[in-house]
Amino acid sequence: MADTTELSELYGNWNYPTSIRFGVGKISELTDVCRQLKIDNPLLVTDKGLASLPLITDILRQLSDANFNPVIFCEVKPNPTGSNITDGVKCYHQGKHDGIIAIGGGSGLDAGKAIALMVGQNRPIWDFEDVGDNWLRVNEQGIAPIIAIPTTAGTGSQVGRASVIVDEQQHNKKLIFHPKMLPAVVIADPALTVGLPAHITAATGVDALVHNLEAYCAPGFHPMADAIALEGMRLIKNHLVAAFNDGTNLIARSYMMVASTMGATAFQKGLGGVHALAHPLGANFDAHHGLLNAILLPYVLRANRAHIEIQIAEIAYHLRLEDPTFDGFMAWLTDFSRQLSIPENLGDIGISAEKHQMIGEQAVLDPSASGNPVTLNASQYAKIFVNAVEGNFS
Amino acid sequence: MADTTELSELYGNWNYPTSIRFGVGKISELTDVCRQLKIDNPLLVTDKGLASLPLITDILRQLSDANFNPVIFCEVKPNPTGSNITDGVKCYHQGKHDGIIAIGGGSGLDAGKAIALMVGQNRPIWDFEDVGDNWLRVNEQGIAPIIAIPTTAGTGSQVGRASVIVDEQQHNKKLIFHPKMLPAVVIADPALTVGLPAHITAATGVDALVHNLEAYCAPGFHPMADAIALEGMRLIKNHLVAAFNDGTNLIARSYMMVASTMGATAFQKGLGGVHALAHPLGANFDAHHGLLNAILLPYVLRANRAHIEIQIAEIAYHLRLEDPTFDGFMAWLTDFSRQLSIPENLGDIGISAEKHQMIGEQAVLDPSASGNPVTLNASQYAKIFVNAVEGNFS
Repeated sequence: MADTTELSELYGNWNYPTSIRFGVGKISELTDVCRQLKIDNPLLVTDKGLASLPLITDILRQLSDANFNPVIFCEVKPNPTGSNITDGVKCYHQGKHDGIIAIGGGSGLDAGKAIALMVGQNRPIWDFEDVGDNWLRVNEQGIAPIIAIPTTAGTGSQVGRASVIVDEQQHNKKLIFHPKMLPAVVIADPALTVGLPAHITAATGVDALVHNLEAYCAPGFHPMADAIALEGMRLIKNHLVAAFNDGTNLIARSYMMVASTMGATAFQKGLGGVHALAHPLGANFDAHHGLLNAILLPYVLRANRAHIEIQIAEIAYHLRLEDPTFDGFMAWLTDFSRQLSIPENLGDIGISAEKHQMIGEQAVLDPSASGNPVTLNASQYAKIFVNAVEGNFS
Repeated sequence: MADTTELSELYGNWNYPTSIRFGVGKISELTDVCRQLKIDNPLLVTDKGLASLPLITDILRQLSDANFNPVIFCEVKPNPTGSNITDGVKCYHQGKHDGIIAIGGGSGLDAGKAIALMVGQNRPIWDFEDVGDNWLRVNEQGIAPIIAIPTTAGTGSQVGRASVIVDEQQHNKKLIFHPKMLPAVVIADPALTVGLPAHITAATGVDALVHNLEAYCAPGFHPMADAIALEGMRLIKNHLVAAFNDGTNLIARSYMMVASTMGATAFQKGLGGVHALAHPLGANFDAHHGLLNAILLPYVLRANRAHIEIQIAEIAYHLRLEDPTFDGFMAWLTDFSRQLSIPENLGDIGISAEKHQMIGEQAVLDPSASGNPVTLNASQYAKIFVNAVEGNFS
């Protein structure tokens, strides 16, 4: 339908990719959802930054008032590590919990999903890295039921079937995957994102744009993913700047939450070079994932240009750009990023190009690399990285 | 992505709304899928017309060769009845089956899904009519696992969570609903549709168009459904005439199969007046559901015009029509229907307007009526019906 403008219309219960309860105030249904999933003793997983905020204390109060006895685990780094997961699993068993409520941006959600997986396994987490058929090693019955509650509109991890976890020994990010890591129920309440600072709104919002865009351009035949990705990008074009300029705009917040959910739904099809670079950069520089994606996007698009001109023109048409071509899209993206105060290069956020060779090598090995429309080698990724550090668009 | 033209690219394994194995030749994976779902003794459900065709005997041979002992139940009418379901349930229990393979167009798929539901229930099927919370009465554990194999590109029932079953006592069609009636795995093999006669290709193809269109225009906030519906319509515009003109065109058949799957995925959001009329007409005249939808569509669109002009213009833009307005869309639809030899009115298929009052009353009660963009009363539905019988576009 055409974009509505009445907040009262922006509600829904959706059934794919999982059961999603969407709308401002939907968080009040959390206790109902626990009962529906037969969770009596949930472990809340989130990150330290969120743990003390009113949105979490409100959730704890709702659960207490309904005679749950909620326990919270928040020893989760911004880029969650293997030992965070091990600690969370211990906490789950000590408290004899029977389900996970994962709350947060990517950190809280990915940690919660990985803990839910690992409470029922005997192998180390790295045995479930998303390589080949590793996921078949999982004892499926052991996975705890997951309720996911996003607090940003970016990662979309609430509808994803994987978690990105830092392997501290190997200094890289690994994708841990199982289809049952898809949360059983998502409560997507846009009001939970109202407190996000503008710069995080921008970075997470462009992260969602990158998810939709890389999914759309990834090779493979998946018309449903393509359709969702196209429309997700249109919603972001129309609403992200408003959410950035006024964080209390619940209409803009609602559209951004659905657009980010759509991004992660679409990227079951694949991601691409932006993520292939952002993952090693995140692991090596502990920088914000969404911000890395936002800065890297135009550099990777230029490198891919010859292989994506048709797709980008399709996107530009769907976005109603005046010039529905690759160049028209790039001009729009430049302007859009400026309106969102996204830094123009990685140098601006303190990343230097010294380790370019290593970053290039790690990018090639990243699972997202297989979704790039053209296979890039380590020196090509290294070159893109150097360009992104220096702001070189040549 | 842009429409590909190489058949070898039109393959995929998708994970929403359920697990879908898509592509020409994918039927060869049926025994693997049975094993994955731990089905050792499947009951095949299909309709009589299909039962003797090579596509069914090939499936039986594949199962026999893999040491399954397949039994087939084909006492299913074109509009399946309550007693068809009762008979199927008996057959399932007598053979001690442990899963259903539903094969067909709407008839075989809807019957198979309803039998899978009913093998585990003690109440009569009408207790599970999609009214209020009736679905909560279902003993969920009792539902048999379902593999769905579509043989037309229309109904999309393979990704739906309901079956339309004729209540012979009450002379109406009832919607039987439970979320777990969604098949666990779909094998969508476009080669199975090659033998469809051209007029069935046309009728089922426009049925899929109607699913996408009514879902898109239905009230409610569901941007993923809207996105899927828009793209589904584009694929039908681009490929249905080719499939109609040459049934062996596997590229066109592939796109039509995905577009019909998208239609039924999208209509979780809702349907509308076309279906509200087609259901009572199907129950009273035993006419082909898709054909009824195809004929009714322009009459219902005209009646809804004031409430859908914006949405139809959006569709027209996405279809790249030269005149992206309501009138431009209607002109395109007229031309499209003529190319597909869809009759212009219900009189052409032997339906008379005598029972118009009763049809109007039944349309109001049909569950699809709630998805129409504007509430229509019985006399408004009756008037649309009379217009559609007489070919009156005033």
